[in-house]
Amino acid sequence: MMFQATVLTLYPEMFPGPLGISLAGRALAEGKWSLDAVQIRDYATDKHRSVDDTPAGGGAGMVMRADVLAAAIDGTAKPGVPLLAMTPRGRPLRQERVRTLAEGPGVAILCGRFEGIDQRLFEGREIEEVSIGDYVLSGGETAAIVLLDACIRLLPGVMGAASSGDEESFEAGLLEYPHYTRPQMWEGRTIPEVLRSGDHAAIKAWRVSRAEIDTRLRRPDLWERHIGARVQSPSGARQKKDE
Amino acid sequence: MMFQATVLTLYPEMFPGPLGISLAGRALAEGKWSLDAVQIRDYATDKHRSVDDTPAGGGAGMVMRADVLAAAIDGTAKPGVPLLAMTPRGRPLRQERVRTLAEGPGVAILCGRFEGIDQRLFEGREIEEVSIGDYVLSGGETAAIVLLDACIRLLPGVMGAASSGDEESFEAGLLEYPHYTRPQMWEGRTIPEVLRSGDHAAIKAWRVSRAEIDTRLRRPDLWERHIGARVQSPSGARQKKDE
Repeated sequence: MMFQATVLTLYPEMFPGPLGISLAGRALAEGKWSLDAVQIRDYATDKHRSVDDTPAGGGAGMVMRADVLAAAIDGTAKPGVPLLAMTPRGRPLRQERVRTLAEGPGVAILCGRFEGIDQRLFEGREIEEVSIGDYVLSGGETAAIVLLDACIRLLPGVMGAASSGDEESFEAGLLEYPHYTRPQMWEGRTIPEVLRSGDHAAIKAWRVSRAEIDTRLRRPDLWERHIGARVQSPSGARQKKDE
Repeated sequence: MMFQATVLTLYPEMFPGPLGISLAGRALAEGKWSLDAVQIRDYATDKHRSVDDTPAGGGAGMVMRADVLAAAIDGTAKPGVPLLAMTPRGRPLRQERVRTLAEGPGVAILCGRFEGIDQRLFEGREIEEVSIGDYVLSGGETAAIVLLDACIRLLPGVMGAASSGDEESFEAGLLEYPHYTRPQMWEGRTIPEVLRSGDHAAIKAWRVSRAEIDTRLRRPDLWERHIGARVQSPSGARQKKDE
């Protein structure tokens, strides 16, 4: 079944954008995923087609209206397809969530703009607030493109069988080991000896060790989580999931 | 002075993409930033214009060659402009870094593809490895778009003076407080009383309190960092910066 992506946005012309090119673009052309970019403004009800209003309590900028967004959500919802909103207040996106989404029927993504979205929308509709990182964007659109890019490459038949993604970053809770390729010697630097040895067990051990060392040095937070997950008892694992 | 963005990529046709529309697009048209999307393949030296080769030690996929990438970097470097590479092995991007970049002369961004980049490139050139989050993309291009989006909105004159960004997410190390706007009543839900009170001190106190509560509940990691930064002595603050 085709992975169905729906994006609710004030800028549907931003899509597919970079997702119409290369890996994601070929997959789109081959019907491995579909894209419906919905103009939120089409669901406005007043004659000015307004989608936003000034913030209650005062302050800078504009806030997106709950009633208009709810109409757009209700008018485009697909059964079984989760609705996400890209917002810096959301749960940080991680590869596990990307993989679960990619295994499902698709995803609907609400892209915020301006100062934010009326909070009541999140109480009145089932929406998963997701953040792609601790920085602020001009809107949810570029975050939606990132989320879709991450999902699409995992869809069946999109990457070659050779690159299943099983050995890559974050899949084992670790950063990936460093890569090397020809030329053998570049600016006086050589490829590590072990990688030229042909000894597959030694190569594997070196790569695991480097992934562990680099994770510990570069991302102590990831390393702590990796260690924690390894030593946890089954009941501990359940606890962790409920956090 | 104009903020100069240079992107080194195998898919220059992905740019400006969404950055050619809306806020970033207007700023580009108005000359508040410039974009140079460089085709890495133009720096290949063999007759097949190859930019990648098989990984030393075996394994899936292809690795981008250090010699070709170095030629592209050397051929396009601008004095004083930092070079970043978007990679999951990089330092997690945060708003502080975005703000520093936006205050500088520009940014050059190397977009990885395939399995990764020959590690020797990072030893032979001054490159800041940056990750936009703990997930895997089909390439660095969509990550570069996110980074540029985050920077461009902070350039002088891009956002209205009303939205200076001073009160927004992460600027005080906290999530932003929730927003509300008209209608007053939506599906039986009202705007919190205090926001309709006209009492500016009470509104401010409510917003600070909600930002703190939401950060503590949703992002205990951010909250810990926020508390840590607050209680730190001047020497402690210096220590933190050097981490």
